[in-house]
Amino acid sequence: MSRLSYACDENMVGERMIKFAKELYPCNRSIMGPDIRSGLKKFIEANPSFIPIKYRTGENVFDWEIPKEWIIREAYIEDQSGLKIAEFSKNNLHLVGYSTSIDERISKNDLLKKIHTLPEMPDAIPYVTSYYKKDWGFCLAHNELSKLTEDNYKVYIDSEHKPGELWVLEAVIPGIYKEEIFFSSYLCHPSMANNELSGPVLLNEIVNYVKAIKNRKYTFRFVILPETIGSIAYLSRRTKLLKKNMICGFNLSCVGDERSYSHVKSRLGNNLADKALRAALIGLENVNEYNFLERGSDERQYCAPGIDLPVCTFCRSKFGTYPEYHTSKDDFDLVTSNGLLGSFDVLRNIINSFELGIYPCVQVLGEPQLGKRGLWPTSSKLNRGKQHSKIRIDLLAYCDSVHNIFEIAELIKVDLKTVINELKILNNAGLVDLKDNVSR
Amino acid sequence: MSRLSYACDENMVGERMIKFAKELYPCNRSIMGPDIRSGLKKFIEANPSFIPIKYRTGENVFDWEIPKEWIIREAYIEDQSGLKIAEFSKNNLHLVGYSTSIDERISKNDLLKKIHTLPEMPDAIPYVTSYYKKDWGFCLAHNELSKLTEDNYKVYIDSEHKPGELWVLEAVIPGIYKEEIFFSSYLCHPSMANNELSGPVLLNEIVNYVKAIKNRKYTFRFVILPETIGSIAYLSRRTKLLKKNMICGFNLSCVGDERSYSHVKSRLGNNLADKALRAALIGLENVNEYNFLERGSDERQYCAPGIDLPVCTFCRSKFGTYPEYHTSKDDFDLVTSNGLLGSFDVLRNIINSFELGIYPCVQVLGEPQLGKRGLWPTSSKLNRGKQHSKIRIDLLAYCDSVHNIFEIAELIKVDLKTVINELKILNNAGLVDLKDNVSR
Amino acid sequence: MSRLSYACDENMVGERMIKFAKELYPCNRSIMGPDIRSGLKKFIEANPSFIPIKYRTGENVFDWEIPKEWIIREAYIEDQSGLKIAEFSKNNLHLVGYSTSIDERISKNDLLKKIHTLPEMPDAIPYVTSYYKKDWGFCLAHNELSKLTEDNYKVYIDSEHKPGELWVLEAVIPGIYKEEIFFSSYLCHPSMANNELSGPVLLNEIVNYVKAIKNRKYTFRFVILPETIGSIAYLSRRTKLLKKNMICGFNLSCVGDERSYSHVKSRLGNNLADKALRAALIGLENVNEYNFLERGSDERQYCAPGIDLPVCTFCRSKFGTYPEYHTSKDDFDLVTSNGLLGSFDVLRNIINSFELGIYPCVQVLGEPQLGKRGLWPTSSKLNRGKQHSKIRIDLLAYCDSVHNIFEIAELIKVDLKTVINELKILNNAGLVDLKDNVSR
Repeated sequence: MSRLSYACDENMVGERMIKFAKELYPCNRSIMGPDIRSGLKKFIEANPSFIPIKYRTGENVFDWEIPKEWIIREAYIEDQSGLKIAEFSKNNLHLVGYSTSIDERISKNDLLKKIHTLPEMPDAIPYVTSYYKKDWGFCLAHNELSKLTEDNYKVYIDSEHKPGELWVLEAVIPGIYKEEIFFSSYLCHPSMANNELSGPVLLNEIVNYVKAIKNRKYTFRFVILPETIGSIAYLSRRTKLLKKNMICGFNLSCVGDERSYSHVKSRLGNNLADKALRAALIGLENVNEYNFLERGSDERQYCAPGIDLPVCTFCRSKFGTYPEYHTSKDDFDLVTSNGLLGSFDVLRNIINSFELGIYPCVQVLGEPQLGKRGLWPTSSKLNRGKQHSKIRIDLLAYCDSVHNIFEIAELIKVDLKTVINELKILNNAGLVDLKDNVSR
Repeated sequence: MSRLSYACDENMVGERMIKFAKELYPCNRSIMGPDIRSGLKKFIEANPSFIPIKYRTGENVFDWEIPKEWIIREAYIEDQSGLKIAEFSKNNLHLVGYSTSIDERISKNDLLKKIHTLPEMPDAIPYVTSYYKKDWGFCLAHNELSKLTEDNYKVYIDSEHKPGELWVLEAVIPGIYKEEIFFSSYLCHPSMANNELSGPVLLNEIVNYVKAIKNRKYTFRFVILPETIGSIAYLSRRTKLLKKNMICGFNLSCVGDERSYSHVKSRLGNNLADKALRAALIGLENVNEYNFLERGSDERQYCAPGIDLPVCTFCRSKFGTYPEYHTSKDDFDLVTSNGLLGSFDVLRNIINSFELGIYPCVQVLGEPQLGKRGLWPTSSKLNRGKQHSKIRIDLLAYCDSVHNIFEIAELIKVDLKTVINELKILNNAGLVDLKDNVSR
Repeated sequence: MSRLSYACDENMVGERMIKFAKELYPCNRSIMGPDIRSGLKKFIEANPSFIPIKYRTGENVFDWEIPKEWIIREAYIEDQSGLKIAEFSKNNLHLVGYSTSIDERISKNDLLKKIHTLPEMPDAIPYVTSYYKKDWGFCLAHNELSKLTEDNYKVYIDSEHKPGELWVLEAVIPGIYKEEIFFSSYLCHPSMANNELSGPVLLNEIVNYVKAIKNRKYTFRFVILPETIGSIAYLSRRTKLLKKNMICGFNLSCVGDERSYSHVKSRLGNNLADKALRAALIGLENVNEYNFLERGSDERQYCAPGIDLPVCTFCRSKFGTYPEYHTSKDDFDLVTSNGLLGSFDVLRNIINSFELGIYPCVQVLGEPQLGKRGLWPTSSKLNRGKQHSKIRIDLLAYCDSVHNIFEIAELIKVDLKTVINELKILNNAGLVDLKDNVSR
């Protein structure tokens, strides 16, 4: 991107994301309430482009109703010696999300029915919520259960459910075109790193990246919202606008580990976002493509019948597939600067493709004479041993103004970054024009 | 089907089909003649909706001509002691169908040229015909050949070919729509159970089932006819009408054994009947899909170029693939009440789909809130261990008014009966509308 | 082809091709110059339908410029005893094509940098050119290198580059339709048999074959040209015309060995030429289909973006895949009469299909009654054991005026020659009409 003033020191970018994620980590986020609001405010501070859209408790959003806020002050189990177990103040995962208040002494047997553990991962505290059914409960490492040796325990939860507001953060970074590229991630989980903080901190960094593109062609829209209820609320106000302008969108979930790259396909599986993501994952290791039947994040809403936005979901290790998912082990041993940077790079290549112009068209008939332009590469190998010259002529053979960059990358089996770099060289030499195919 | 007054005691239905088949079994059916006519009359007695369409010998039907009737009174081979071998009166398979008359003493060698056996199945009498070439012959269990120890034998066949009528039974059960669902089966073989009687007795039961549907939406058309010449004769009078109104049709052949379920695809392989049958076979064991190159029953005519009706063929074990096919072993050891009921169930699920409305459309935007309607299933497992809740939300995700029930069942990999039941629940809750997409 | 007066004694045709190839073999062809011109003149003598199209040195053709001619008189390396090594007059592969002049004594070390060998095939002389970079060099069998024992050598090349003409031979054999079938092959390599002479001698024989078709329906266009620069030059004058009239075209390359049959697909992989060639290769042994990414001959130009003619490439062993490729071993041990005849047969079946009419349409509704026409085959087996009767009725089932001969051959898995023969029989019987679907 010659039009880019973004500081591309990769280490710095990765560290900045990790640092922000660690700063956000301790807070007891949920879908609504003061803790999630304070988290969202940190994003506004970091990036004033974010503006909150507010939905009041009781407001109808499509088929749903905005619930009450959850305020939690203290929660623990206490034995007769005064020893506190499952103390919320020590780890916010100890308490089932949206738990109601209680202050009672109950039998060990009754208590055990309210305690969630993971026998197959005995030192991890599981993450459990009860948003839409009034209930309470605690979560414990399975190993800790054996410490419950007394006949009865005091159970104490000081929480409150009261009318309030659900917030969605939205940032619109305008470009020359009204056509939009969209990114969504969610903030609603307590202290977990991959299935929570990796998405919004990456999205925040993408906002920075996009803002730094000079003479930006596309309009970029970003949202951070609580999963499910947040995307439903958001869509209830924005569907018409998004259906009109969005050409490509990505939901970001679990984008911080280093284990793999995953694509959860859209409902019909082959929209422009699917093609873009598939192309951007060429050449990476451990790439997994998941059918829509294996969905689970906000692609559920963006791809619902009648909504049908051109969105798919991007993950490193997909939610539900890694052992630390929804436990206290989803921490910064799992999420790393390198993991986040890998995700950043994938999205950057997609953005760069759009800003370059995704419909390349060769400007001569027949194969170009590369030698006379000094464009016949020497024998360097660019792509896992594939000759640079072979990549260049294969690319030229598909620059027909009909196939887009992402389709071409798949056809010629070359990674998207190499395709972009080659197209820039060929464009500079006047051999390839790059069209946008948007209505202006 | 809340609109259904049909008595669904399955055992009773299965036994009724078997009983009818056994009643029809002994008769020496062929494509034309008094025996096949008496068989067809039993269907008219059982089901007065059937009306015969008659074609006279010599009448041109497309590229064919209606042949003469075949009357057979007696046939046997007799040795010098007066012992009768291959006696037609003992088993009508002993005589090659449409054999001409003969009353001669011939050498054993000449006789052997006229005898058909199955060395690989030595105790079975094969089934052979010679409709369009004037000839005679006998069929014997291979084991019996060794009994022919004399030098010459008397051969006696008292048969006659004379002008007459070919009959096709047709029943039209009208509905609100002029659009038709079609079922065809054939009656033209002598004493065989699967490749003959299973088809028409199942079809007869389907007539009963369809008549019991109150406020039937679709018109249903049923035919029982001699294979090949019968369907050609029928099409020669009905093609225009059928092409106008038929949206889905099934040829029924060999539908009475318990071994497998088979789909012989239409010529182009993906019409609405193909989709419906494929969906109706999801979750069953031993399902086989055959290409049109492996055809062999009346799909040959219904799918011929220029006819191209939306028909495919449904079998349990496909004709030509099971060892008893076209032999005296194709009897009621092979065809059972359970076998016929399995076929009945497949067709019932297809009919129920059409009568329910095959284009489901979810009535809310975004994922529905199932909990507030009491529709969030508890952890019951419906479909080979797949969670009920997963099935319900996957189904809802594809109720887009574009995909039909059959396509959705395939997409979400759930059996058709489960899909129907779920759609009824969601429809009753007002969450899903069910459209028909027929012209009215 | 009843309309064909072509003498089909196959042995004679094969021998004629080999004889012509051997006559052409010794000449030192290159892309331009007196030697290639003398080769082309032999084609004009053999077939006066060929007319040269001439392009002058310096003329711009699309992105390229016609280079200078290369005249080479003598070239060798000489040791101190006067012994000549790598003598051009003994084998024209010893000299790098388009080498510049030199007459110097140089050190052995400097000489070795200018010598190409094939260590993995030590007794073969490799074929090397330097068309667009001014340079010189020699090619040696790797075994010969050890003979260079002296400290320095005389290097002598007497060559010249001067303005001249590039020639393309074109033959147009008119038919009733303006729609054209196109064949292209190349002549630009020195003494090699498969990757050079097999293509043009086969093409020349196809011209003979086409001229012998009486009342030819299609117009046939043939070109022989130097690879790459020749097809680019040709297209620079003919693209508009070819795009208007060409419905199917084939580039012929390496069509003379007996090892396999290869199809290098067009850029999008499924044009009429791809379908025709795929059908024509059914039933042959060792058939390979190559993606456009594995291209390398003039399909590169014919299928370039914006040109996009319906062309694919036909080979026996594909260029670059057989060990003798681009070496002195590519000779008449590799290229045989049988090999050329196999290729001739493939193209003849395609031409015969077009001249017969590629859209068959059955003339009756329902299955035809073959018996009454004497068309029900006895039990002969035509196609690797497939019953003749099965082939005939399968073919009839797809004669729907929508699928063309090539698609039908693939659908019913029967070789093209059998399909053609069957269609002739069915056409003669009035059962099948054969349409052309060209605009007249």
